[in-house]
Amino acid sequence: MKIGILTSGGDCPGLNAVIRGVVLKGTTNYNIEFVGIRDGWRGVVDGDFFPLTRHEVKGLSKVGGTILGTSRTNPYEGPRGGAENIAKTLYGHHIDGIIAIGGEGTLAAANRLWNDGINVMGVPKTIDNDLRATDYSFGFDTAVNIATDAMDRLRTTGDSHQRCMVAEVMGRHVGWIALHSGIAAGAHVICIPEVPMSITEIAAQVQKAHDRGRAPLVVVSEGFTLTGMDEAFSDKGLDAFNRPRLGGISEVLAPEIERLTGIETRATVLGHIQRGGSPSGFDRVLATRLGLHAADSVYEQAWGQMVSLKGTDIVRVPFAEALGELNTVPIYRYEEAAALFG
Amino acid sequence: MKIGILTSGGDCPGLNAVIRGVVLKGTTNYNIEFVGIRDGWRGVVDGDFFPLTRHEVKGLSKVGGTILGTSRTNPYEGPRGGAENIAKTLYGHHIDGIIAIGGEGTLAAANRLWNDGINVMGVPKTIDNDLRATDYSFGFDTAVNIATDAMDRLRTTGDSHQRCMVAEVMGRHVGWIALHSGIAAGAHVICIPEVPMSITEIAAQVQKAHDRGRAPLVVVSEGFTLTGMDEAFSDKGLDAFNRPRLGGISEVLAPEIERLTGIETRATVLGHIQRGGSPSGFDRVLATRLGLHAADSVYEQAWGQMVSLKGTDIVRVPFAEALGELNTVPIYRYEEAAALFG
Amino acid sequence: MKIGILTSGGDCPGLNAVIRGVVLKGTTNYNIEFVGIRDGWRGVVDGDFFPLTRHEVKGLSKVGGTILGTSRTNPYEGPRGGAENIAKTLYGHHIDGIIAIGGEGTLAAANRLWNDGINVMGVPKTIDNDLRATDYSFGFDTAVNIATDAMDRLRTTGDSHQRCMVAEVMGRHVGWIALHSGIAAGAHVICIPEVPMSITEIAAQVQKAHDRGRAPLVVVSEGFTLTGMDEAFSDKGLDAFNRPRLGGISEVLAPEIERLTGIETRATVLGHIQRGGSPSGFDRVLATRLGLHAADSVYEQAWGQMVSLKGTDIVRVPFAEALGELNTVPIYRYEEAAALFG
Amino acid sequence: MKIGILTSGGDCPGLNAVIRGVVLKGTTNYNIEFVGIRDGWRGVVDGDFFPLTRHEVKGLSKVGGTILGTSRTNPYEGPRGGAENIAKTLYGHHIDGIIAIGGEGTLAAANRLWNDGINVMGVPKTIDNDLRATDYSFGFDTAVNIATDAMDRLRTTGDSHQRCMVAEVMGRHVGWIALHSGIAAGAHVICIPEVPMSITEIAAQVQKAHDRGRAPLVVVSEGFTLTGMDEAFSDKGLDAFNRPRLGGISEVLAPEIERLTGIETRATVLGHIQRGGSPSGFDRVLATRLGLHAADSVYEQAWGQMVSLKGTDIVRVPFAEALGELNTVPIYRYEEAAALFG
Repeated sequence: MKIGILTSGGDCPGLNAVIRGVVLKGTTNYNIEFVGIRDGWRGVVDGDFFPLTRHEVKGLSKVGGTILGTSRTNPYEGPRGGAENIAKTLYGHHIDGIIAIGGEGTLAAANRLWNDGINVMGVPKTIDNDLRATDYSFGFDTAVNIATDAMDRLRTTGDSHQRCMVAEVMGRHVGWIALHSGIAAGAHVICIPEVPMSITEIAAQVQKAHDRGRAPLVVVSEGFTLTGMDEAFSDKGLDAFNRPRLGGISEVLAPEIERLTGIETRATVLGHIQRGGSPSGFDRVLATRLGLHAADSVYEQAWGQMVSLKGTDIVRVPFAEALGELNTVPIYRYEEAAALFG
Repeated sequence: MKIGILTSGGDCPGLNAVIRGVVLKGTTNYNIEFVGIRDGWRGVVDGDFFPLTRHEVKGLSKVGGTILGTSRTNPYEGPRGGAENIAKTLYGHHIDGIIAIGGEGTLAAANRLWNDGINVMGVPKTIDNDLRATDYSFGFDTAVNIATDAMDRLRTTGDSHQRCMVAEVMGRHVGWIALHSGIAAGAHVICIPEVPMSITEIAAQVQKAHDRGRAPLVVVSEGFTLTGMDEAFSDKGLDAFNRPRLGGISEVLAPEIERLTGIETRATVLGHIQRGGSPSGFDRVLATRLGLHAADSVYEQAWGQMVSLKGTDIVRVPFAEALGELNTVPIYRYEEAAALFG
Repeated sequence: MKIGILTSGGDCPGLNAVIRGVVLKGTTNYNIEFVGIRDGWRGVVDGDFFPLTRHEVKGLSKVGGTILGTSRTNPYEGPRGGAENIAKTLYGHHIDGIIAIGGEGTLAAANRLWNDGINVMGVPKTIDNDLRATDYSFGFDTAVNIATDAMDRLRTTGDSHQRCMVAEVMGRHVGWIALHSGIAAGAHVICIPEVPMSITEIAAQVQKAHDRGRAPLVVVSEGFTLTGMDEAFSDKGLDAFNRPRLGGISEVLAPEIERLTGIETRATVLGHIQRGGSPSGFDRVLATRLGLHAADSVYEQAWGQMVSLKGTDIVRVPFAEALGELNTVPIYRYEEAAALFG
Repeated sequence: MKIGILTSGGDCPGLNAVIRGVVLKGTTNYNIEFVGIRDGWRGVVDGDFFPLTRHEVKGLSKVGGTILGTSRTNPYEGPRGGAENIAKTLYGHHIDGIIAIGGEGTLAAANRLWNDGINVMGVPKTIDNDLRATDYSFGFDTAVNIATDAMDRLRTTGDSHQRCMVAEVMGRHVGWIALHSGIAAGAHVICIPEVPMSITEIAAQVQKAHDRGRAPLVVVSEGFTLTGMDEAFSDKGLDAFNRPRLGGISEVLAPEIERLTGIETRATVLGHIQRGGSPSGFDRVLATRLGLHAADSVYEQAWGQMVSLKGTDIVRVPFAEALGELNTVPIYRYEEAAALFG
């Protein structure tokens, strides 16, 4: 049995731990031969493979990024793309199936290929924690730790200068990183895509924290949008000079908060540091376990499914169940945290 | 409504985050008045209380330890102990109920008091993750991160000197910290209380890793015991000079591994650094949520229960269900990791 | 003897450790009475003082920020400013002298007040390490550690995506943080204010690293400027749409690097996280020692001077020597590192 | 020109950064060919060499340990040892000189070889900071950071349980790690080899801190010895049962402190975690600079010397000056810190 492994989409702490888990279990227990596929679906389409042995994966549980490289290539595009071409390429290299480690887009492509007759199974990867059908995905815990640590630092600066600090974290469509790091760091306002707010509401919460003698901390997901009906600010994608907006949402919020409250306010966009570097213990364990179970899955030919965390167990979920709707922050989780904001 | 809060048993990162969560939610949403109880059950017995306001808990989510102090006092012992005396003491201070944050022993005492007519509810606390009826307890994730980080460091020393490193982690009765940190750090042998091994088995795994060119890493729970029937070593609680043994189990293993394999071997007992300091993001979120739900529980008079993590939700579990048996590492979890050891 | 302490200018990890060092030594050894001055020179002008006892400074060596607050107030401005008014205010509160902890601007004001007859001594504070007459200043080491850690993270993302990463660090006038964190993180280009470069030079170095198979890492001080004579890019303070530029210099460089090399490039502005949070060991020791020696200095009435690090010793330097010229990166230090860039 | 590089003695964070600095500068600027020597002097004696190219050292600035391996072999011992044999071995491999990275013992051997006609230059390496003729050596800063972080953690446990915590750090002959980490962590007693104390003195300081409401923190160097004339305790190398003592000095102190003060006391031996893992920013910069200057030194044939840190500069020091006497903590540095202990 010969199996290809790919990582696709944005990188995420834990990818290498999954790869290591798959290869160690698959070679030792099932005598499976593995090949690494370079740069996600790009390598499938181009037939860009290399041998992946026990030796290649040693020491990888703690290494960030992915030794396979990654890209955002769609396997159905280009002259060598599409299920038929891919089937020929895999056949030509004697590859019996693919483990695709990726997010919503990757898994959707994997599902389509599976429906078109290619053996594919999935490992969910999303630093934003936006995938349904898994309690948590690896990378998320590391991102929350990095964001929390950064906000602990921002607080001392805020306290010393009696400033309001606005921290922008990842989360294009869902607010999990903002919610968890905001709870962890003791934020006074948490702005997430699922709960639009007006700038006057935000400013009011900032003012309230300030009135209690605190240096207000605002955490905002990159995908948060202000409610448009607000007189104080209308987010038409324009900046303060009425030009197409550059920069993150935090850089929109900070001057408006300062204008409305009179409190000196500073924005920090945490950016790419949230997705790089060595994974946390939680993420290493989760990613390794997903890798071990992915090896079981290919051995048992459980194609068309992904491995997933439920409670403390690793289970299998058909692609169809996992896709379609994002794992958004439920309103009760947001409201649960409201008592913390005072 | 006036509620006392206590922390009891060994300290644990996240205790202060629970206290903060309780007080913020309870005062803001339910207008509950809180008092801090000093040093666990000792403060209940002695009537050692102090006002616990919003102001007292500010900034606590990231602070390790417990501002309430802790002890191992049994509330049924001493001249002022016992349910009747305690009922009088609480009545005298107009305290309507107690939130007890603690482990197996604390919750057993809480349950007995509850059966004896005192309003008590619980928040599970165990750095070893040895409590049933909660998926994880706060403090455990922080301990795993600290142990993993320490082992990452030990590995570079092991590699440079071609030594075998033995790391001893917490876990008197269960091996969760050893299992998770061992998986995370890429250990070659994991020794836990649930799975006794002989010194010859351990030495054989060490030798195997060494033969593959690796510097062997052995992780051992403090509560691990060697199988007695082994000729190479008989753990009679004696040290190498036939004297009552001092020091941790790692200090027993290291010289024996060196003797059997000829590989230079060093032991490190991580000790108290695993339970101190600022909690991880995961633990701050879990502890804060448990605190918020504990405030709901006292408001709803849900006495005789503890709050608990199930999947991603906080639920309530009657004391009786939570007690009695420890949450040991199931054998399938240990075997799952075996492929990693090669 | 009664002495006031103030912190002025941007906050910096280690300020609280200085304050603690001063108060512990001064009260224990010399029986000096201390008052905290709120928000830098603002508190001097307004007479905003509070008692600063041993108890107030306990546990402060590891706490970021400043318990005294800080501001950028000029003591010579406003109706209550100026040496004469300040002398009266201090006399009215029986304050014999001031310890001013701050950077170039703060020390210049301190020097002027000293020349105008007020007892002032200084402790150098600059996260950028831009003060002459001290080998290093506290806060700098912490900032370098934070920037290095962030770049370690950026590298794994760069490697996985074969991207060029541009990291912008603090340093308005001098490039020390960029130089040291760039060496530490293995950067391929280091852009500092002292050494203007053209965008084509930068792009050429990026290309060279890329050609060797590396994901290029560019570190840039916030105060770096591109040479104007370059055809590829002219830094007129305009952005790509010919509008007054917003955002940091890294956000100017990244699209230009991408345009010239064809390598996908991302910018990250580390911002305020570099100056917050718990100080490193080095900074705690340096700050504490400066505080201890500042207490000696006031006891010995060594006014008009600042304490300073020379090699491994703390010495005293007259204000006049310390001021005037910034501690820029000497060209031999920049060239020393050039071999690392390949 | 062909140069061999070796690392010898205990490992230390920064060794790999030195190696990288040497190779990058030497190959790029001087066209020197490098070989790695395996396991210190052992590899010199055995002629165990391998090519060390630019490619081999990529990414090494942040990697702990040494890719060359290390040992404590004496080059003058064994049938193939001695200057004459070594000269032949090097000649046979066309090796023109050796860069030896190591501590007192390594440099003494290097000096002897140099006097016997072999081209050797040195790079000082000592995690304990016990070498004269360099202000600091790499590895020391990382060790202080790790020890400080560990003690921050121990303090929260101490505070919660009102315990005295004893932390044992490295330092066989000198107390630098104890002094700096003790200052950084706010210790109440610092016990170093240079300043013997009696157990009653230690217990008195512990009691004093306890009386001020603090949980006492004692830091002790592994090489500290109690004064023998003390009635309370006589350090005859015997443990409490009159047997040859096992375990660290902290395990001797803790029960005695508890006996004399009645305060519950716990010992933690930090051990090998202090010398492993990724170096701090300071150590990466220092080690890299030493490596760059070592490449200059061999190019300029500056044999018989070591490179060294003086203030902010890297200088050269003849072996003879560097050896003989250890860099102990001067008494004024110890007394300087005394005000902190109260």
